Amino acid sequence: MSDPQGLFERLATPAVRALRAYDPGHDLVALRARFAATELVELGANENAYGPSPAARRAVLDVLNTLHRYPDPTGAALKDALAAHHGVERAAIVLGNGSHELLMLLAQAFAAPGLEVVASRYGFAVYALAAQAAGATLRLAEALPAGHAMPRGHDLDAIAAALTPATRIVYLANPNNPTGTWFPLDALRALLRRVADDVLVVVDEAYAEFVTAAEAGSALTLLADHANLVVTRTFSKAYALAGLRVGYALAHPQLAAVLDRLRESFNVNTPALAAAAAALGDAEHLAWVRERNAEQREALAGALAARGLRVAPSQTNFLLVDFGRDAADLEARLVARGVVVRPVGGYGLPTCLRISIGTRDENRRLLTILDEVLQ
Amino acid sequence: MSDPQGLFERLATPAVRALRAYDPGHDLVALRARFAATELVELGANENAYGPSPAARRAVLDVLNTLHRYPDPTGAALKDALAAHHGVERAAIVLGNGSHELLMLLAQAFAAPGLEVVASRYGFAVYALAAQAAGATLRLAEALPAGHAMPRGHDLDAIAAALTPATRIVYLANPNNPTGTWFPLDALRALLRRVADDVLVVVDEAYAEFVTAAEAGSALTLLADHANLVVTRTFSKAYALAGLRVGYALAHPQLAAVLDRLRESFNVNTPALAAAAAALGDAEHLAWVRERNAEQREALAGALAARGLRVAPSQTNFLLVDFGRDAADLEARLVARGVVVRPVGGYGLPTCLRISIGTRDENRRLLTILDEVLQ
Repeated sequence: MSDPQGLFERLATPAVRALRAYDPGHDLVALRARFAATELVELGANENAYGPSPAARRAVLDVLNTLHRYPDPTGAALKDALAAHHGVERAAIVLGNGSHELLMLLAQAFAAPGLEVVASRYGFAVYALAAQAAGATLRLAEALPAGHAMPRGHDLDAIAAALTPATRIVYLANPNNPTGTWFPLDALRALLRRVADDVLVVVDEAYAEFVTAAEAGSALTLLADHANLVVTRTFSKAYALAGLRVGYALAHPQLAAVLDRLRESFNVNTPALAAAAAALGDAEHLAWVRERNAEQREALAGALAARGLRVAPSQTNFLLVDFGRDAADLEARLVARGVVVRPVGGYGLPTCLRISIGTRDENRRLLTILDEVLQ
Repeated sequence: MSDPQGLFERLATPAVRALRAYDPGHDLVALRARFAATELVELGANENAYGPSPAARRAVLDVLNTLHRYPDPTGAALKDALAAHHGVERAAIVLGNGSHELLMLLAQAFAAPGLEVVASRYGFAVYALAAQAAGATLRLAEALPAGHAMPRGHDLDAIAAALTPATRIVYLANPNNPTGTWFPLDALRALLRRVADDVLVVVDEAYAEFVTAAEAGSALTLLADHANLVVTRTFSKAYALAGLRVGYALAHPQLAAVLDRLRESFNVNTPALAAAAAALGDAEHLAWVRERNAEQREALAGALAARGLRVAPSQTNFLLVDFGRDAADLEARLVARGVVVRPVGGYGLPTCLRISIGTRDENRRLLTILDEVLQ
């Protein structure tokens, strides 16, 4: 074969040439092969340690004989369930192969070279990727300072100040990954008043179902008043279906129609559609997960704080822990002992690690090994 | 909510504004609700009536307890199986959420406004969508005439003549959907000699595993000699996993790396990765499917020809049937009686219907109802 010597990099569009792939973290396949199941503690991907509703697994069994058929391209059953759940019309919903896909599609549909995308420093990594892939310019607003009550959280005033006439999309996460921080609904209301009607405000609520603080609130309640507001949700976190890839966006039907046209018609597969609808129907399981997670969140945050570590407030299923020194070596020693957490140096947080909240047993094992490693 | 009056259409990029969504055909969910299972004959989506390998279903069962974990973002196990199967290195493989995603990603990565995409008239609809979504100009090469031995098939000389200095991608399907036609490997070799090194030649082999004609051949054998050649395959057709969405591209590792960076890291989900690897391992099932399909293809083509209908030659699991008059009404009457076939007026073939080859019983039922309708 002829050696194209960088040919394909040169042929790629400028946006794709500049693109760096999302870093999904450690090679779990390799780690699972290296450690016994009881010895590996996977706290690196904010997965839900309690697993999905049993109804979701049963729903997958129910479609095992239809795998040769294409999925329903309209996702009608899941959309109907979501429409009833959120009290919106079906046309306001777009389904995605995870909310990741929807975040990317938003930029692909509405951003372009010469336009700007605004996000917060320490905002979820996919916002920058979405802007890059669309060839748009990313403007990062400064986050709240590390010493703030919401350390490194979104500063919605700074976001508003970063808007220019070229801004097309603002990506916010509430709560945010990897900081765990959140902002009150009033701050979002104020921001929406300052944003022009032709700027899309995308609020990524991937962790919303874990929220227990009453003041946090969901942007869903503002959808009816703001045609330029888009809210994304996922079944990967509290619903524990990360392996199936289902997310959704709620938006003005005309905006939803644009995304729906751009998405691939069979972007969410059959087991995913079935399991998500079943998971949505099991409110009891979700409530149980939320309660267990909140309980362990408090316990783990307390245990880490008791070790003198700075733990950011969290309404999610993970904690951002600041070790006050470069954490790369610490992380390497944890993973060598079978404890997987997420380094966040790529986010500009080299002294921090993001630790998913596991079950009580997993958190105990994490603390035991962390104590060994910190000695 | 304020009425944005077409605001989002105006805000969308010119490419997305012009985009028309892929037409997935009839609403099967509604039809399945209307007809009893024994009365509905689904021959509209080129699905594999024999179903997947039992090993694929077992593989889905095997991952039911890991749905809360993210899929392997590298798809290592499936890629290793594919690499061994095709005798290529792992780095030459990109996995997609169906080959549809890969066909779109190719244009997103390499095409753009001002560049051209070449395809054949009557080529698979996604090539035009991919060009449109990227904002590139689509140039359609004239197909072979209806009276040719490969009626409406790709004319690779016409393709070569359609190339300009602005051409970036050529999409070919072998065999092609919806015509069922194919071209010999020698014609592809000749085309590749005429195409500049910086033009990507994408050969979509979605139906390759159904091919029984020795002269058809696969472009895979040419990959080692042509860095600008990309071959896409799917698990949706002969492997009968349309419901799971798994496709793959084989390409020069440097080209694969560009696509791999642009794809979403978890684009293929856990059951899909597991089932595809299992299906690939069951060569016996695939051979059995190929044999049954070829047998029914010949029988159904013969039965339709005996009714005086013009049936295009096919190496796939469907037949393009020309009724010699507008077929819309005929199609409507078929679906009213529970026989789903695919109208192809959107392809500029209003006198034709595309009929998937079913099991013997399904084909009998199709013929019975077709006879009623044609009377």
